[in-house]
Amino acid sequence: MKEHANGNGNGNDQVVFEIGVVIPRRVVQVKDESFECAHVLVQEFQKVGFVVERVIGIADEFIKLAAPLETLGRAAAALQIKKRTHIGMDLQFEVEEVEAFVKQPDGSVFSWFERFQCYCHLINGIVNNSDSVITLEFDGEQIYWEIGECLLQKLESENVVKQVFPLHDEKKRKTLLRSWAFHWWDLTNQPIDDIYSYYGSKIAIYFAFLGMYTRWLLFPAVFGLTLQFIDFGSLKLVVFPAFFIMVILWAVMFSQFWKRKNAALLARWPVSPAVEDDPEYMTPGRKGCSLQPPMELIKVFETDKVKGKEVFRRYEWFGRFMRFRNDAIVIFSIICLQLPFELAYAHLFEVASSDTIKFGLTAIYLCAIQYITKFGGKVCVRLIKYEDNENTEKRADSLVYKVFGLYFMQTYIGVFYHALLHRNFSTLRKVLIQRLLLSEVLENLVENSVPYLKYTYKKYRVRRKKKKEKGESREKIQFTSRVEKEYLKPSYSASIGEELEDGLFDDFLELALQFGMIMMFACAFPPAFAFAAVNNIMEIRTDALKLLAILRRPIPRAAATVGAWLNIFQFLTVMSICTNCALLAWLYDEEGKWKIEPGLAVILIIEHVLLLIKFGFSRLVPEEPAWVKANRAKHTIQAQDMCSKKLLRTISGGEKKFHLVKKLE
Amino acid sequence: MKEHANGNGNGNDQVVFEIGVVIPRRVVQVKDESFECAHVLVQEFQKVGFVVERVIGIADEFIKLAAPLETLGRAAAALQIKKRTHIGMDLQFEVEEVEAFVKQPDGSVFSWFERFQCYCHLINGIVNNSDSVITLEFDGEQIYWEIGECLLQKLESENVVKQVFPLHDEKKRKTLLRSWAFHWWDLTNQPIDDIYSYYGSKIAIYFAFLGMYTRWLLFPAVFGLTLQFIDFGSLKLVVFPAFFIMVILWAVMFSQFWKRKNAALLARWPVSPAVEDDPEYMTPGRKGCSLQPPMELIKVFETDKVKGKEVFRRYEWFGRFMRFRNDAIVIFSIICLQLPFELAYAHLFEVASSDTIKFGLTAIYLCAIQYITKFGGKVCVRLIKYEDNENTEKRADSLVYKVFGLYFMQTYIGVFYHALLHRNFSTLRKVLIQRLLLSEVLENLVENSVPYLKYTYKKYRVRRKKKKEKGESREKIQFTSRVEKEYLKPSYSASIGEELEDGLFDDFLELALQFGMIMMFACAFPPAFAFAAVNNIMEIRTDALKLLAILRRPIPRAAATVGAWLNIFQFLTVMSICTNCALLAWLYDEEGKWKIEPGLAVILIIEHVLLLIKFGFSRLVPEEPAWVKANRAKHTIQAQDMCSKKLLRTISGGEKKFHLVKKLE
Repeated sequence: MKEHANGNGNGNDQVVFEIGVVIPRRVVQVKDESFECAHVLVQEFQKVGFVVERVIGIADEFIKLAAPLETLGRAAAALQIKKRTHIGMDLQFEVEEVEAFVKQPDGSVFSWFERFQCYCHLINGIVNNSDSVITLEFDGEQIYWEIGECLLQKLESENVVKQVFPLHDEKKRKTLLRSWAFHWWDLTNQPIDDIYSYYGSKIAIYFAFLGMYTRWLLFPAVFGLTLQFIDFGSLKLVVFPAFFIMVILWAVMFSQFWKRKNAALLARWPVSPAVEDDPEYMTPGRKGCSLQPPMELIKVFETDKVKGKEVFRRYEWFGRFMRFRNDAIVIFSIICLQLPFELAYAHLFEVASSDTIKFGLTAIYLCAIQYITKFGGKVCVRLIKYEDNENTEKRADSLVYKVFGLYFMQTYIGVFYHALLHRNFSTLRKVLIQRLLLSEVLENLVENSVPYLKYTYKKYRVRRKKKKEKGESREKIQFTSRVEKEYLKPSYSASIGEELEDGLFDDFLELALQFGMIMMFACAFPPAFAFAAVNNIMEIRTDALKLLAILRRPIPRAAATVGAWLNIFQFLTVMSICTNCALLAWLYDEEGKWKIEPGLAVILIIEHVLLLIKFGFSRLVPEEPAWVKANRAKHTIQAQDMCSKKLLRTISGGEKKFHLVKKLE
Repeated sequence: MKEHANGNGNGNDQVVFEIGVVIPRRVVQVKDESFECAHVLVQEFQKVGFVVERVIGIADEFIKLAAPLETLGRAAAALQIKKRTHIGMDLQFEVEEVEAFVKQPDGSVFSWFERFQCYCHLINGIVNNSDSVITLEFDGEQIYWEIGECLLQKLESENVVKQVFPLHDEKKRKTLLRSWAFHWWDLTNQPIDDIYSYYGSKIAIYFAFLGMYTRWLLFPAVFGLTLQFIDFGSLKLVVFPAFFIMVILWAVMFSQFWKRKNAALLARWPVSPAVEDDPEYMTPGRKGCSLQPPMELIKVFETDKVKGKEVFRRYEWFGRFMRFRNDAIVIFSIICLQLPFELAYAHLFEVASSDTIKFGLTAIYLCAIQYITKFGGKVCVRLIKYEDNENTEKRADSLVYKVFGLYFMQTYIGVFYHALLHRNFSTLRKVLIQRLLLSEVLENLVENSVPYLKYTYKKYRVRRKKKKEKGESREKIQFTSRVEKEYLKPSYSASIGEELEDGLFDDFLELALQFGMIMMFACAFPPAFAFAAVNNIMEIRTDALKLLAILRRPIPRAAATVGAWLNIFQFLTVMSICTNCALLAWLYDEEGKWKIEPGLAVILIIEHVLLLIKFGFSRLVPEEPAWVKANRAKHTIQAQDMCSKKLLRTISGGEKKFHLVKKLE
């Protein structure tokens, strides 16, 4: 335990710096360093137990932090982090009993998420413990560090610490680049365990989802291409419904089997309860950890059961009502504000005579939706503040649902309009090809080039500033320190605002919109599945490259499921049952007479049967593989039996005491 | 602990006999009683710790058993019964720590289900422990009790013990009669906690469900009656859809709020895990207790994780496949065999000219369906034997689904036929009134009179037999002993066979068929809800009377939820969305032209919206009240924290040993 091992604990003694603190370079040089801000900070970091390295960059100075296992263990015990033990139960971490806890897949004791929690706890735990105010100096100015004040927050408020951000682990990053981002020939296979170790569960789950989705896509892609290139002649009227039914069954099975896959992944990774967030995978005890009604409520409940129940009920229903109100507001404003706008654009575009007008219209529209989406996102974030969701991930889910409503309207209303207006498949197909190609290719381009351009621009600005200061303009300034380069890289953030979601929002959104596009108009354009499959195979590697090379290392997130997005996928599946039925009805009703013929009746029956299958299938295939269940059950029983007797004694002892107290009263 | 308290433990020392053993009266009188069967049996019972009373009846002899708390406690500890403790965790019962466990609502330590388990364990635990065969005498014959053989099984196989059955507790029965069965003016209120104490959770849940369902029915009943008696004139076309929408929303809310009510009831009663069966209310650990893959599987899993996973997967999918195959067989045979038969009857009845033919037809039909239902039930029971459902209650649920399919066809196909054929509401209404009145009134009559007639006939037979034996015919023989009367009472058994379900099957079936009838044709006949409400208010009391006065005390069952029936209710709700839409379409399409008019479009939209609400509502209102969740969470965390350290030490100790062993190898 005492050896100076690295936090990752994988045997070698090389220290891995995982957190960077940015301080601007100072102009004034002080002689006595003992009260100089950066110096004090470094000293305090060392006191806490960090391994510290100072790097002087071109524009800023950086303090790199690494935590040995010892330091992390201390922080984890202080944080009362619950970790998976070998009997499967999650127990509070204790340094002495480190052997009892399950190691991460890469052999380390703590996951990246846990390490990050510990770093945060340690950094924010540096307070002025002396009994007098300490005067710090920074660039000639004086900063008063009050008693009991957190040093880092003080320095951040004084703009001395510009940022604290997680650092890439060069060695692992390079390994991943080789084994993941540049491993094109693997198609959908990815080293998910390594991704989990490096990026945490949420990002690993995204890539596992993307991989499985793409693998599954290959099947309808082949079917769709067959439909496109082989002429079925008079069988055409039967082939399209068959394709539609097949695609829906495919989607239903996909979402159920994904749940199983997710459960299997969670069983493989020792994800601790604080990390699990989806109620699907939580035992009741854990659920309770995340559900946090105000402490007063719990106290009321303990003193008076009947009154407590009443209070709880009121609290619960008020929460429900607020959430319902917010959803109603969002749905109402989407239907009343966004829908007319989108329809107006689609209609104007349709009736516009010249290409110039069309072009102008599109330009105005694109500007407007940028603004609308931003605004909508902000409104949603504000609305969510009035909800009391159980935890951050729930809140993020709530945001995702609301914002997805916006994007849903924006993406599909135009297509629906065209489908309804022209009532013929060739026009609809053209629109779909346009949209698919445009959105996929453009988005992939934007997604990857914008961060790179940002990074380049930032580097350029720093260089220019430096040159101005120095007054020299001959030689090019090189960024020698890696940490400074990383600091200039953009972070992995969502387009709708950084408060609740990170860049995963955009990645999932792209997937969901693609899924909706190919599913909802499956009958109209079967080869769309092939488009999507090819695009996703590329997406896997470009996303990997983006995360590894272009962006900073993201802050790890707690959730270990896809969260709201799976529900959105399921919603899109249900929607596509309805829309495809409508499309088929239009297809068979070529005269536009709106007559119920046997054809329409058949379509209605198909629709209802498919809806039945959609909602019945989850009963047929359980969400959790049997071996995961059996494994966990065995462990839990083991644990219960182990401490059963001791617990009983404690409880009955407590009860006796309780009765005694009652009698004395 | 040592006091000779009764098993119910409610303070008074009066012994309550809860089990009766029936032995035929002997002809041959023996002098030496020490090897006489009944005498040995009584002695063995006393040795185990029972309080025994022998009663000589007219035709048989009875041994009544009561178990003091001490005896029960010993049996419970031997059975390793898991019971709710004060910290909310379920732990194995131990006699010394009895204070740690939550008392039943009536103040006793064990619930009726647990007591029954203990009785069974104790009775079946009487084996020949001596080292030689014991020769028993019975009515002149000799019975050899082998070493290690179970006495009761031996005697049962030799027809010495005719039956072992649970006895009514006279005092409690009378209290319940007064407070429950004869308490008409309470309408839907019932002393559910007392019912739970006396009959166990499954029956109490049935009555709680019936009560809540009836209470909720009052609302659509009033609306339905309004629709019937007030003439809305031209508004009629709007009022019916409004009623339909209201009724569907009502049903959706009912099923969700019932789940909450059920969760609240389970929180109030300390139901132990073995008793809980529905996955909805089980923590994973408990789930594991009930899921029992063969022990070999678990062993394989422990030795080789990868191979074990594979084996588990194969095992799981094989189970799924068998269940799927069975369901497919049932659905297929219902559609291919039963549907044509039902349609043929409905059609023949329609085209029959004279009333005599109609009457004859109905008679033949009624005989035939009796036979068909019995046969179908038997086939289902046989099919289920090939499924490996996790436990008895799951198996019973699987049976319920299958048999309900039969009844569903049988009940509704005729009505559908009429609706489709005549396409006018007045004929449909007539059919509905016929069916409702007929089924409700007839079934209530049959349900209550048949057991009573059976009982009377049995008494008569015993008397006749006795008279023949004695040769006297003047004085009427009176049944003096209560236990003999109870023995002659019929048991609470299902009409489809006694293997998996008891009488609750018929009671729930009646409710479900009624629910289907009033919901699926809600638009055609709104006052049906009032019919149903009145009928159910009567049903509550007649069912109570049946259980308390006419039948034997039922054997308690493990489940504490409605089980399969709630899913059937939900299925019927979805069905009724579709059927009512079809009815409305027919209503608006009076000319029979099958044209899609705006009306039909509106109906289709309403249908889809309602389906959306049906499946979305469960996300809006959680199945478990917040206070139940909070309460449980608090307890679990408490328990985990309590034994966290000890557990850790054990685990890490074990791990160290494990590593050592590995190294040594």
